[in-house]
Amino acid sequence: MLVVQKYGGSSVADAGRIRRVARRVAGVRDGGNDVVVVVSAMGDTTDDLVQLVGEVSDNPPGREIDVILSTGEQVSIALLTMALKDLGKKAVSLTGVQAGILTDSAHTRARILKIDTARIEKELKDGNIVVVAGFQGVDAQGDITTLGRGGSDTTAVALAAAMRADLCEIYTDVEGVYTADPRVVPGARKLEAVSYEEMLELANLGAVVLHPRSVELAMQYGIPLHVRSSFNNYPGTVIKEVESVEKALVVTGVAYDLNVAKIGVFNVFDKPGIAYRLFKVLAGEKINVDMIVQSSMRDGKNDISFTCARGDLKKALEVVERLHGELGADGYNGDDGVAKVSIVGAGMVSNPGVAATMFEALAENNVNIEMISTSEIKVSCIINKDDAVKAVRVLHKKFNLAEEPGLDG
Amino acid sequence: MLVVQKYGGSSVADAGRIRRVARRVAGVRDGGNDVVVVVSAMGDTTDDLVQLVGEVSDNPPGREIDVILSTGEQVSIALLTMALKDLGKKAVSLTGVQAGILTDSAHTRARILKIDTARIEKELKDGNIVVVAGFQGVDAQGDITTLGRGGSDTTAVALAAAMRADLCEIYTDVEGVYTADPRVVPGARKLEAVSYEEMLELANLGAVVLHPRSVELAMQYGIPLHVRSSFNNYPGTVIKEVESVEKALVVTGVAYDLNVAKIGVFNVFDKPGIAYRLFKVLAGEKINVDMIVQSSMRDGKNDISFTCARGDLKKALEVVERLHGELGADGYNGDDGVAKVSIVGAGMVSNPGVAATMFEALAENNVNIEMISTSEIKVSCIINKDDAVKAVRVLHKKFNLAEEPGLDG
Repeated sequence: MLVVQKYGGSSVADAGRIRRVARRVAGVRDGGNDVVVVVSAMGDTTDDLVQLVGEVSDNPPGREIDVILSTGEQVSIALLTMALKDLGKKAVSLTGVQAGILTDSAHTRARILKIDTARIEKELKDGNIVVVAGFQGVDAQGDITTLGRGGSDTTAVALAAAMRADLCEIYTDVEGVYTADPRVVPGARKLEAVSYEEMLELANLGAVVLHPRSVELAMQYGIPLHVRSSFNNYPGTVIKEVESVEKALVVTGVAYDLNVAKIGVFNVFDKPGIAYRLFKVLAGEKINVDMIVQSSMRDGKNDISFTCARGDLKKALEVVERLHGELGADGYNGDDGVAKVSIVGAGMVSNPGVAATMFEALAENNVNIEMISTSEIKVSCIINKDDAVKAVRVLHKKFNLAEEPGLDG
Repeated sequence: MLVVQKYGGSSVADAGRIRRVARRVAGVRDGGNDVVVVVSAMGDTTDDLVQLVGEVSDNPPGREIDVILSTGEQVSIALLTMALKDLGKKAVSLTGVQAGILTDSAHTRARILKIDTARIEKELKDGNIVVVAGFQGVDAQGDITTLGRGGSDTTAVALAAAMRADLCEIYTDVEGVYTADPRVVPGARKLEAVSYEEMLELANLGAVVLHPRSVELAMQYGIPLHVRSSFNNYPGTVIKEVESVEKALVVTGVAYDLNVAKIGVFNVFDKPGIAYRLFKVLAGEKINVDMIVQSSMRDGKNDISFTCARGDLKKALEVVERLHGELGADGYNGDDGVAKVSIVGAGMVSNPGVAATMFEALAENNVNIEMISTSEIKVSCIINKDDAVKAVRVLHKKFNLAEEPGLDG
């Protein structure tokens, strides 16, 4: 069996943890498996390097940021390989360049274009455990690139896809994917399995277990991911095709996101191209718009509301100020006192009334809904920030998420 | 003009120093020159990485040590390049791999085989200042190598040779090459120029300004080196061909080395192959033998004395113990209470009596000489360790090294 494992920064934060990871990897190797291990930079290394960059330059070029940040993973791979050799295992470290991880040239947020697996395959054939630096690659010019947020997860999934791995394990500092944030909902339960689609929604909704990029990639290539803790041996959560998730739950989990701001633009012209104009300019300013709601208020006039990250609120309001005459708006406002609370579940699509149950639960508890957006497997509501924790708890209870689902669940 | 500059670890030890180096480099560029800059790892970075390795493994493989150590210079090149760009200069960083520094596969002490200068030339042509990581290269397999001690100086000299640079400046934390260690001899004087041969002797004698490797390489390719401080603008010392050193001094400088131990082997057979046998076995044990003195004591018997680094004394004595029967020796001893004091000067070869003057000065001051070894431009004496500082001062005075040499000097 070919196993790809990924260990995050907290799993390799010091010498002791690196030796522990080495023992775990060696155990998998002893089971007769080929093993490719992807590692992140140790603990806070990346933050330390970013700080160093800040001391030298106010406006560091992306190419050079990548040269410096990529050293973090380079240190980890060498140390883990040393620890594996101390355990008597054959092992070899490979940087992104050496592992053949070819990317575009978008420094600090590069995309993997192709993996040339020749070197990895040679090393596996020679009996080596192959330790690959996550988060980094090389462009056509031979320049070092980094993949941006979620980069090491993406490296692991892309390698698993390219190598047709049998298993891709993502080791992290949480035990898996939960029905809600366990710090907010004491009864939150670890899920045995979720579908890619559910995980994508959960990831996009602020559950930080996996970056959406890596989930998308896994979905695209049908790679099952096992998310689990490197600090114990409990099984974690498997993320896989919805058909193979044994029982599609109506509601799998409840998520919330406090990094939200809401903008309302009132009474814009009701004619083609108005929404296009507004959101094109916002995109041009690199403002990532999340929810969009347009509602016809009366003949010839509309309200448009949308949400973005809190840090983009000021810039978004400047765009609206600039465009409001052109849009025919008679007013606008911005609000960063909001939160997004969402329910996610692959079974929702075949269960009408789930959204209504959500609204009912919120209404019963005096939580006012300011915006609603739905997809086939998700319902999100914008509510007052102060109600966020209450809303998550109420919804977790309403959908009985603390209980193991029964056969009819 | 094409200028290669090398900045050592203390010159780039923090953000402020990196910005200062950037201003110096930018100034050279503003003078209309092409500039290739070689940098070492910041301050104590390499020591910190070595310590980290020690925490993880007792027996780290050389290949992985190189993967980790090479990150130190990779951080420096990115930071210096950022600082140059902040000054409005076009600049690009290159790792050893990217700079085409091809080495053998002797990890932690690799030798440069060839420099493929295509990428550097392209970047210079594009108007960039090229910032190259010192101390590192890549082998035929694509694996990262490091060059061992003096590695960054060697990188700079090798690049200057490969690029046919007009000037190679080595920036360090001392102001140049002195007639003696200024911490020992208060009147020690900075030399304007020394020949490669003199510098080689001085470097081998423990003057740590430049590693002998880089001096050898510069001599081989006829690259003049300018050793100077990055902390001020004073001219340093130029190291160049002896013919072009304007006035060959009889004695250029006095050096001493405390890392010496002496072994005596008494009354060995006086027949061919005895010395060969002893020194072949010592070499096989990787004991670097420095001075060798053989003296005929009486018919058919000889004494052999030699010196090695203090750390090798124990191993050397074990070799002698093992071989002494075969050699016919009737005894041996070891002594680590010694030091080597030397005078170096390219003019010595044409000035008989210099050695005698040295012995006279030592005798006048009750310094007993235990071994003597001479070359065309050097005389070394093994003396009691406790006399080392006195001997250096006495010799510095005897040869009038504190004074600027006159026209007849």
